Amino acid sequence: MTQSVDHETVVSRLLSADEILILCHKNPDGDTIGSGTALCLALQKLGKTAAVLCSDPIPAMYAFLPITVFDGSFTPHFVVAVDVAGIQLFGDRNNMPQYAEHVDLCIDHHGSNSGYAYETMLDDHAAATAELLTALIPEMGVEITPDIAACLYTGIATDTGCFRFTNTTAATHRAAAALIEAGADVENLNERLFECRSHARMAAERMALESLEFYYDNRCALICLTWDQIQAAGVAGAELEDLTSLPRSIEGVEVGLTLRQQKDGSYKISVRTGHDTNACNIARRLGGGGHPRAAGCEISGNLDNAKHAILDEVKKELDRSASLNAAES
Amino acid sequence: MTQSVDHETVVSRLLSADEILILCHKNPDGDTIGSGTALCLALQKLGKTAAVLCSDPIPAMYAFLPITVFDGSFTPHFVVAVDVAGIQLFGDRNNMPQYAEHVDLCIDHHGSNSGYAYETMLDDHAAATAELLTALIPEMGVEITPDIAACLYTGIATDTGCFRFTNTTAATHRAAAALIEAGADVENLNERLFECRSHARMAAERMALESLEFYYDNRCALICLTWDQIQAAGVAGAELEDLTSLPRSIEGVEVGLTLRQQKDGSYKISVRTGHDTNACNIARRLGGGGHPRAAGCEISGNLDNAKHAILDEVKKELDRSASLNAAES
Ligand SMILES: [Mn+2]
Ligand SMILES: [Mn+2]
Repeated sequence: MTQSVDHETVVSRLLSADEILILCHKNPDGDTIGSGTALCLALQKLGKTAAVLCSDPIPAMYAFLPITVFDGSFTPHFVVAVDVAGIQLFGDRNNMPQYAEHVDLCIDHHGSNSGYAYETMLDDHAAATAELLTALIPEMGVEITPDIAACLYTGIATDTGCFRFTNTTAATHRAAAALIEAGADVENLNERLFECRSHARMAAERMALESLEFYYDNRCALICLTWDQIQAAGVAGAELEDLTSLPRSIEGVEVGLTLRQQKDGSYKISVRTGHDTNACNIARRLGGGGHPRAAGCEISGNLDNAKHAILDEVKKELDRSASLNAAES
Repeated sequence: MTQSVDHETVVSRLLSADEILILCHKNPDGDTIGSGTALCLALQKLGKTAAVLCSDPIPAMYAFLPITVFDGSFTPHFVVAVDVAGIQLFGDRNNMPQYAEHVDLCIDHHGSNSGYAYETMLDDHAAATAELLTALIPEMGVEITPDIAACLYTGIATDTGCFRFTNTTAATHRAAAALIEAGADVENLNERLFECRSHARMAAERMALESLEFYYDNRCALICLTWDQIQAAGVAGAELEDLTSLPRSIEGVEVGLTLRQQKDGSYKISVRTGHDTNACNIARRLGGGGHPRAAGCEISGNLDNAKHAILDEVKKELDRSASLNAAES
């Protein structure tokens, strides 16, 4: 079991360490890379040898960050993991076999952290690991330089969807203010992080918008993607996953449905709802499940059957909510 | 000519006034409505009679704000304009003929403010009038209630594109932090303000994505909308205008072009560029003009001619920038 440690202990561990290897999580995002790079820069400013390692390549959109990638030129004597909630999140570990097994210190903000490190500093109120480091790095006696500020802003801004997601708190905004004052060029950073849509994303959106249908007085919107369309557009993973929020985001839509055909022909259905209806009610009756606002199920058979089945359940749920509202008023 | 006044003077004017009419600008946005409503609530908390007036209806997306619309039930003795940079921005003034001519006090953040009011408090470093009021309302001796905080957060978040636009400063984030602590429910507010896309917006995006073409190794992206398509989609104004940023926002695209056919058949072309090329160079050679990153021109003749002409100029500008970069390295 890991030992929980406070800021003071973390600072003393870092100040007494050298030859420090910083590990990021697989499929790296702006927070793990921004936090890792910021911590690395801070340690280097203290005259220490430090470098960052990740099982996956750094995505092109983060290549502008001044990251020192570990190249084996020193033997790590202290291993820190940033923004990594569990040991399986290190990825395939081919390039870090011995290090991921013995993590000295983990700095993280995921409430689900499994406690795999020897010591862990966890703050699950922080919107990002970078928010936590915005306080910690000055406590190490290191001034936040414009480079460090850019790394930390990247972590906070990406983990909060640019201050839009529900994890954003007053402390998150205060951290952003401090980073701007420390020299983070937010004009440039926001353009890099948020004004850039991948070709895959554009292809996915186009495909989705072309299939958009409305039902029940525009209270329900549905997008439908066949296996062939998905293959032809070359869209996968996150881009495809992101589409599931699109139908519900249209004005007046209470229930958003995304039907994706699987390789075996069956349809995977994502259900997203507003405040008036329960997505789980809809999905559960078709053998699925999930949360009140986001749920899913799978239906085999052809598209007409799948649509018919799910739309029937949507109608029942819309009717239920309408009668509840009528009873209340 | 208007008199510039500081916070202290504004506070003393507002505290000694009663029967206060607050004017917003036409085509009201989140800042003018949020600021007007927040100021109105603050004055009402001081026991004063106050109400808000706008020449246009309040858009549905802001209807949740607790706005007291002026209904003629009192005779205004003090007129305040919020977020209104010039007298023409009051709109047609049919419902406020006498008031807009004699504005006692203007509170604004537009550097272009024309000075139409008797006294003006202007801070053009503020990202929004609401940012300015976040400081001013406590100076009036009024605590920021959750309702007032929701109004001010709405103003700040909408004027900054949720903290993404270049007007966002450290002070903007600090104001947001204070409003969250005062009870602004940002989860709910961000969902209302930013997770909702209009049907017109969806139609416009679909139309744009269907016409998307790439040129010059994907360095140039072009969308093209014919007059008939625009009419069929029922898209106009802001939704159409917003599309002009789409092609440039695609990864790797340096020059984004939007061609919109006018009623007379000619093509209005918007040119957006990245850091390497100059949009104005491209537009100027076709009789247009603008800024380094955003410019425009108009070409008569058929679509093929218009495309050919603008793409030729794009090629010249891309070549010029490539040869500059080669010379530098
Ligand atoms: Mn994170
Ligand atoms: Mn404004």
